[in-house]
Amino acid sequence: MSWLDEVRFDDRGLVTVIAQDAASGRVLMVAWANAEALAETASTGRAVYYSRSRSRLWRKGEESGHSQQLRELRLDCDGDAVLYLVEQGGGVACHTGRESCFFRRFGDGKWQAVDPVLEDPELVYRK
Amino acid sequence: MSWLDEVRFDDRGLVTVIAQDAASGRVLMVAWANAEALAETASTGRAVYYSRSRSRLWRKGEESGHSQQLRELRLDCDGDAVLYLVEQGGGVACHTGRESCFFRRFGDGKWQAVDPVLEDPELVYRK
Repeated sequence: MSWLDEVRFDDRGLVTVIAQDAASGRVLMVAWANAEALAETASTGRAVYYSRSRSRLWRKGEESGHSQQLRELRLDCDGDAVLYLVEQGGGVACHTGRESCFFRRFGDGKWQAVDPVLEDPELVYRK
Repeated sequence: MSWLDEVRFDDRGLVTVIAQDAASGRVLMVAWANAEALAETASTGRAVYYSRSRSRLWRKGEESGHSQQLRELRLDCDGDAVLYLVEQGGGVACHTGRESCFFRRFGDGKWQAVDPVLEDPELVYRK
């Protein structure tokens, strides 16, 4: 039995993936993986996801240059979520140029962007 | 416009929620919320989810006693995932009696349970 058989992919063949920065502890992003993405992540040590909008594998950093080196791969108790503990290239995971995609905090009845933009997103995606 | 309008619920009316321990930084669990669960979480300061298996609100700790006090609520860039930063009651989020549901680590081609059981799950659910 393969380790991939213990992952409970949904009816689209996908599993939820959380990427967490191994150094800062910040939750960086949430995305999806299929079996191929997980297998490639495990074998290469680089975070690979499945892009639902593009219907293909998404090797994180292929456009932005901000790849993620895998430090640890974890599975949750019911097998339907995976955690990538990563070293985030450039310290920027979000397409807005911030460390984390979770840069909006709830307060005073609204969402407020509270994290700094570390890099101009227009420059990131021209690389 | 309500802050809830900025959350992109899926066709089931749900959004992915990640719970992270505010002190240890551990990713504790992944679950779901509907608008009602988010609203109650924000207003009471206690983590509320939506249980797909039971088709109702799930006030974390209602059976186990291990409730989660909300420290921060965050939304990701595309609005389809929410982060609950919490203080985990009893230090145990997982129904297996472990701190985190992500207690299985990939190594040597297989998933290995690497985190200690802190509390007997049979006792937790008899409380």
